[in-house]
Amino acid sequence: MPTQLQRAREGTVTAAMERVAEREHRDPEFVREQVAEGEAVIPANRAHDSLDPMIIGRAFGTKVNANIGASETTSDLEAELGKLHTAVHYGADTVMDLSTGGDLDEIREANVEYSPVPVGTVPIYEAVTRVDDVADLTHELLLDVIEKQAAQGVDYMTIHAGVRMEHLPLTDGRKTGIVSRGGSILAQWIEENGMENPLYTKFEAICDIFAEHDVTFSLGDGLRPGCLADASDEAQYAELDTLGELTRTAWDHGVQVMVEGPGHVPMDEVADNVERQQAVCDGAPFYVLGPLVTDVAPGYDHITSAIGATEAARAGAAMLCYVTPKEHLGLPDAEDVRDGLAAYRIAAHAADVANGRPGARDWDDALSEARYKFDWRRQFELALDPERAREFHDQTLPGDNYKEARFCSMCGVDFCSMRIDQDAREAAEDGEGKMEAIDDETDLDDSSAAEVNRPPVGEHDGSDVPDLPKFVDPYGHEEPADD
Amino acid sequence: MPTQLQRAREGTVTAAMERVAEREHRDPEFVREQVAEGEAVIPANRAHDSLDPMIIGRAFGTKVNANIGASETTSDLEAELGKLHTAVHYGADTVMDLSTGGDLDEIREANVEYSPVPVGTVPIYEAVTRVDDVADLTHELLLDVIEKQAAQGVDYMTIHAGVRMEHLPLTDGRKTGIVSRGGSILAQWIEENGMENPLYTKFEAICDIFAEHDVTFSLGDGLRPGCLADASDEAQYAELDTLGELTRTAWDHGVQVMVEGPGHVPMDEVADNVERQQAVCDGAPFYVLGPLVTDVAPGYDHITSAIGATEAARAGAAMLCYVTPKEHLGLPDAEDVRDGLAAYRIAAHAADVANGRPGARDWDDALSEARYKFDWRRQFELALDPERAREFHDQTLPGDNYKEARFCSMCGVDFCSMRIDQDAREAAEDGEGKMEAIDDETDLDDSSAAEVNRPPVGEHDGSDVPDLPKFVDPYGHEEPADD
Repeated sequence: MPTQLQRAREGTVTAAMERVAEREHRDPEFVREQVAEGEAVIPANRAHDSLDPMIIGRAFGTKVNANIGASETTSDLEAELGKLHTAVHYGADTVMDLSTGGDLDEIREANVEYSPVPVGTVPIYEAVTRVDDVADLTHELLLDVIEKQAAQGVDYMTIHAGVRMEHLPLTDGRKTGIVSRGGSILAQWIEENGMENPLYTKFEAICDIFAEHDVTFSLGDGLRPGCLADASDEAQYAELDTLGELTRTAWDHGVQVMVEGPGHVPMDEVADNVERQQAVCDGAPFYVLGPLVTDVAPGYDHITSAIGATEAARAGAAMLCYVTPKEHLGLPDAEDVRDGLAAYRIAAHAADVANGRPGARDWDDALSEARYKFDWRRQFELALDPERAREFHDQTLPGDNYKEARFCSMCGVDFCSMRIDQDAREAAEDGEGKMEAIDDETDLDDSSAAEVNRPPVGEHDGSDVPDLPKFVDPYGHEEPADD
Repeated sequence: MPTQLQRAREGTVTAAMERVAEREHRDPEFVREQVAEGEAVIPANRAHDSLDPMIIGRAFGTKVNANIGASETTSDLEAELGKLHTAVHYGADTVMDLSTGGDLDEIREANVEYSPVPVGTVPIYEAVTRVDDVADLTHELLLDVIEKQAAQGVDYMTIHAGVRMEHLPLTDGRKTGIVSRGGSILAQWIEENGMENPLYTKFEAICDIFAEHDVTFSLGDGLRPGCLADASDEAQYAELDTLGELTRTAWDHGVQVMVEGPGHVPMDEVADNVERQQAVCDGAPFYVLGPLVTDVAPGYDHITSAIGATEAARAGAAMLCYVTPKEHLGLPDAEDVRDGLAAYRIAAHAADVANGRPGARDWDDALSEARYKFDWRRQFELALDPERAREFHDQTLPGDNYKEARFCSMCGVDFCSMRIDQDAREAAEDGEGKMEAIDDETDLDDSSAAEVNRPPVGEHDGSDVPDLPKFVDPYGHEEPADD
């Protein structure tokens, strides 16, 4: 059975393309063209029944990925499904199961079964757990793991095939060496075996597996910079050139491709990084991790990286991999996931507005109109994170009567500029003043914005998602209270 | 006695310029030139004895302001001094006392007495508390309040003199009208009295007061946009033209000037806003509030605005007014102040790195080196917010032994890329591998970075700050624990 890419090339608009067109408010034929040209991907493994198809490409709404997964020490299925649902609830457009501990197959299969969004993995993580020493990894084991995960329904996989033997000495002048987990594993394998990267030498075999299951490549940037000093260096760009070659090889096999990018990049180099990837990889979608625009703020790296992510998306990155406040310091908890996703939905939306994506600004307009009208309930409802907005407001003014009050505790009633502005306009209308009243209404139901660019965040067609096991109550605790 | 500007024009390098040169690692003569040309300001009221002088200008490290102050309902002196010290501790380069309640004179005098950083105010807030109705404000009252605050030692004042009668109808097409508190008050006054803005008509009298005490103008942008839809509109730019005129008038009176800017601006318009202000106001320093690059995220506006602030500073804004997570929703608490300042120090520093400010990246390099060496204590020490970094790390690995561990709970020991990278390099060195070990050392003591661009954040020469009243323990609760 041909892949989405192959069918797009044949001129077929698939059911997934139809659904994507509906979600993005675009013409199905345009979706088909974008997929056919490789400028967009629809990661949709044939075996992922519960998937609500989505698209990643610079012509569409900017997407956000959240990493989830069990660690070496802590893992249980309930907790993992809880993470999946937290991520989807707060607006992740895809999730990556980066589990390195627990029953990997059980967790992965459950994630695929219950996820309405594409699930990505990094198969080398599982492969490493199956050997005592990284050097013992074999070509066969790697292909076996990849094939098994493909059969389990994984929609896209990070494959660090661009880390080549000849690139390794280019990392010697770096401050922080190789900071991609997959990249460092492969470098160690190459060093210890004195052989070329097995994911590179077996790339066509991987393509064949991917074509069979319609898995999308996420070509890993194993040599991405881990600090500002290492950004945009020879190692990074040598690998990118390889990723460009591999993109074309994958396309030749009818397989969809996106390309991963950094990492840590100063603000003034972010756009250059995106433009270079777009040129080298012939427009294949760019999927960036941040980038962090400074190294100095551990504890706040959702912010340091959301700044870079906004700039990257404005310059053409198609998907942003979130970073949580715990980056570099520890394992994120549910609140960290929430904070990370909020920062990244902001980055994605701000870039969509800046790029003039059709209808994107309608959301801003509708919220600002509610704000000006002191319609607090509507403002909360439209907020990116309604619970957080309500909670912050209610900390000082919890009473129900304050939900229509013409002020909040920030400025107080006497100094609320919007209240004063409205009074001045009213006085002006009554008398001979210069100002006029304002009364606007943006109808979001009529907006041409892509779904990802409209509230409520985290909505999906869940009709194909099976009922969850009893022990998980994914939305219960986050349900907005009546007020 | 001449102002800093007048003395700079005469060719005198003042003591304040000497101190600034030391803090910025620049030549005193360069500082003098920048002040003489109006491209930088040293807000330093003659009566502010405890001030450690600082400079605001695009040629220097990007600065951050924090707003503090008592509200109409809650206020006591102890709490206000606590806010001052929280702000300074977390790195505010200036503070604005926006008090609208309590004993305004007592609070303002205490802030000036105990603040090592410049104190700014918005005198119209006090003026409004002295009348029953905004329309009752008189020219005399406004000048009296301004003169009194100048005599009290306020270093800079926001004066919304650019809100002119003829601009008001330009705000009619807006979604959120006039959102500056000062701007809305003046619009109401203009509407109700049918007369021109008193701060505009009395501008030269204000200049005379400012010249006498060496108060710096912060020309308020009373018509700044309050949502993306209103950004860069006719009203905003008409006012900016007036601010350009007023800049030249103030300079003619020997008074230092900076100019305030928005607000809410889409990412793609931020740089244009900065460049336009620089052109219209002949290079006077631009002091921006954010800007927020989207309206949709109440509860996270420290992030929406830090994104815009980074871009603004990269494009040439000299000072960033912070926004806290409570913006639009309520009064910030100490933790909100901390979060807001962290976001803005990130923006300021990221822009300084992007702009190639001398030595700026040394901080990033030193932290990344500590990170690569698994020197956790040093990494915390160098972090923008050491307590937060340590706290997050210690949530999962509190033991003292983990302070030298070659992993953290984020990836675990088996999957820590930096540990794997180092092992691979060691193996390569022993054998015939391709990679080499990395051992770097950036000496921050030798860095040419401006003080604001080096850890520890929030350090000041406090030798002229009087001992605090007993009831305030400004640093006690934030002192890093021994570990």
